[in-house]
Amino acid sequence: MIYLTRKMHFSAAHRLYVDSLSPEENRKIFGECSNLHGHNYELEVTFAGEPDKTTGMVIHLSELDAIVKERVIDQLDHKNLDEDVDVFKTEVSTVEMLAKYVWDRLENSVPGARLHRVRIWEDDASFADFYGEGR
Amino acid sequence: MIYLTRKMHFSAAHRLYVDSLSPEENRKIFGECSNLHGHNYELEVTFAGEPDKTTGMVIHLSELDAIVKERVIDQLDHKNLDEDVDVFKTEVSTVEMLAKYVWDRLENSVPGARLHRVRIWEDDASFADFYGEGR
Amino acid sequence: MIYLTRKMHFSAAHRLYVDSLSPEENRKIFGECSNLHGHNYELEVTFAGEPDKTTGMVIHLSELDAIVKERVIDQLDHKNLDEDVDVFKTEVSTVEMLAKYVWDRLENSVPGARLHRVRIWEDDASFADFYGEGR
Amino acid sequence: MIYLTRKMHFSAAHRLYVDSLSPEENRKIFGECSNLHGHNYELEVTFAGEPDKTTGMVIHLSELDAIVKERVIDQLDHKNLDEDVDVFKTEVSTVEMLAKYVWDRLENSVPGARLHRVRIWEDDASFADFYGEGR
Amino acid sequence: MIYLTRKMHFSAAHRLYVDSLSPEENRKIFGECSNLHGHNYELEVTFAGEPDKTTGMVIHLSELDAIVKERVIDQLDHKNLDEDVDVFKTEVSTVEMLAKYVWDRLENSVPGARLHRVRIWEDDASFADFYGEGR
Amino acid sequence: MIYLTRKMHFSAAHRLYVDSLSPEENRKIFGECSNLHGHNYELEVTFAGEPDKTTGMVIHLSELDAIVKERVIDQLDHKNLDEDVDVFKTEVSTVEMLAKYVWDRLENSVPGARLHRVRIWEDDASFADFYGEGR
Repeated sequence: MIYLTRKMHFSAAHRLYVDSLSPEENRKIFGECSNLHGHNYELEVTFAGEPDKTTGMVIHLSELDAIVKERVIDQLDHKNLDEDVDVFKTEVSTVEMLAKYVWDRLENSVPGARLHRVRIWEDDASFADFYGEGR
Repeated sequence: MIYLTRKMHFSAAHRLYVDSLSPEENRKIFGECSNLHGHNYELEVTFAGEPDKTTGMVIHLSELDAIVKERVIDQLDHKNLDEDVDVFKTEVSTVEMLAKYVWDRLENSVPGARLHRVRIWEDDASFADFYGEGR
Repeated sequence: MIYLTRKMHFSAAHRLYVDSLSPEENRKIFGECSNLHGHNYELEVTFAGEPDKTTGMVIHLSELDAIVKERVIDQLDHKNLDEDVDVFKTEVSTVEMLAKYVWDRLENSVPGARLHRVRIWEDDASFADFYGEGR
Repeated sequence: MIYLTRKMHFSAAHRLYVDSLSPEENRKIFGECSNLHGHNYELEVTFAGEPDKTTGMVIHLSELDAIVKERVIDQLDHKNLDEDVDVFKTEVSTVEMLAKYVWDRLENSVPGARLHRVRIWEDDASFADFYGEGR
Repeated sequence: MIYLTRKMHFSAAHRLYVDSLSPEENRKIFGECSNLHGHNYELEVTFAGEPDKTTGMVIHLSELDAIVKERVIDQLDHKNLDEDVDVFKTEVSTVEMLAKYVWDRLENSVPGARLHRVRIWEDDASFADFYGEGR
Repeated sequence: MIYLTRKMHFSAAHRLYVDSLSPEENRKIFGECSNLHGHNYELEVTFAGEPDKTTGMVIHLSELDAIVKERVIDQLDHKNLDEDVDVFKTEVSTVEMLAKYVWDRLENSVPGARLHRVRIWEDDASFADFYGEGR
């Protein structure tokens, strides 16, 4: 069993804000993150599988790239997460919830390989990992 | 003469958009960058000077940090550049114009040292340098 | 369950040296690391938890930062590990033992989240992970 | 139990090519990777063990470096993987198969520590992990 | 005047070898680099110009990317430099000569901007800069 | 003319401290840097020259590495800068003064190439450049 990881990028705007709370409460909970701002997110997707006996590959990287581009990157890149992505109209677009979002978009998407982990870096100092636990 | 460089970060939302042009023209010129999105910007400021004979330092880094924080980072971090920063209400917030903005905010700001270069990385693949030429 | 990781830095001096052994024996075991030298350490702390249903966060990053700063960074940063940190007056300050030290300082420190892993990079080529096994 | 990781590098040429298939079929499966090209590979080897009570070390890094250099780096660095390394005369030198190769060369090689993971980065965007599962 | 830099990548095989010298002489001059091996090269191209008064841009990045892709990346990526690139059939494909090659391919290629510098990283520890001096 | 840069590392302890001043004055000037601490320094040395017509190289990297190792790295690596390096017994070991020290050790050291720049990173956020101006 080999775990193959591919890194990609997307740049997006967002804010951490709960609509049912007042601006002051949001400010208290999320600090300056309650302002509209943005990030260069780094996404790492890890798939587990056995290398094919002939090709030595778990996944064709070009196929993987096309799947992740269509299902994730095209949804998030150069977007305002809170307005352009349905799920974040009601959920807060934390890096934790982004990791779950990407998991839901990619699970069972690649034939012959199992999604093992989604990692999202919000900046150089913070990242969230999701292994599908509880999904 | 020593050139001392300090790196800092800010995260901001913006879009590349000329208000006097139509959405279609903006889309044609700026592509997906005409959508609201965001970045983790990296800022490098370089000051030139002679190290002090006693302390061996060109600048006190803690003083430099306080100056750059007040004059630049606090203006740009966790902001929507195009709405929260006056100059970008009329100018397009390209990385080129951001470099000029930072130069104007920092020139002659540090006693005993000369601002030599402002570098801003918009992402891992693109950065702009400004040396004050033409200012 | 989401695993949230935060990276921080500290710069410290140390040497690898067993007081009960001779300088020659220390030199033989630890090589040039038996000389006083220093590092920019990078610390990654990972906490596991369920995102809060309202805020979408496992931990408030500002609270986490304050806890790690007080319990770890303020103890180690700009210090001589072997003289300024009690435990390293008797134990050798290897990156392995540093990982255990940080674990002991952070376990059960963050309400609502479980410490999952402590990773310390001594330099770009070496790091130690501790998951609390055997503690 | 501490997991200690050491990073090293090697630069090598290779292509992804199955000799029993036609050039067209190889082109279809592997794309431009069926051309001879090359990489700066990054290798991370992780060994698990208990720190020695006296030295605080799981492994002597200088001993580890010597073992990995002799068993792996000297075999792969500044080589054409497909011609200079026996196993890749018949297997395709994907990053997946390279991870297995390194595992086989390093398993049980370090007294007192257990090989836990081999990670190989082919470039900044792709890496494979092998934990010995199925070996 | 703003200096805008764009980073790109290519992966290629090569060796340092002078055909008119014996294998032993090549080995003596170039060491293990006289073996066929390969790298993930990083290319930085810097263009200087005045930002357009309307768009705030020195260059349209999408146009720049297309030019560099066609003139440089497509010539070098996933290639054996010494066999697939005409100039390196007679010149040695050192990182110095690669920088000159890229300069010659990109000079005067971008309307309204002047090529200022070509930087090529052969690996994390070595890079060559060429400013067109002597061309 | 090509500018070739080579990066190397050294790990060292130091403090910023002027012996003729009181501990309180040192604390006021240098803050926590007046405590003994340490860094993983990164050194970049840049040499300018014309590539040799036969070999395509400005410098033999193996020769350069040997020179820098003997003249600089062996003097600074795994040392306490303030006690083990003569010049820093009287000068403060700031990154500015370290850059001048390295310049003095390397100027005119490499036959056929001119030392152009010494850059030293003290950590990921700070570096000093010296071009020999005033030497």
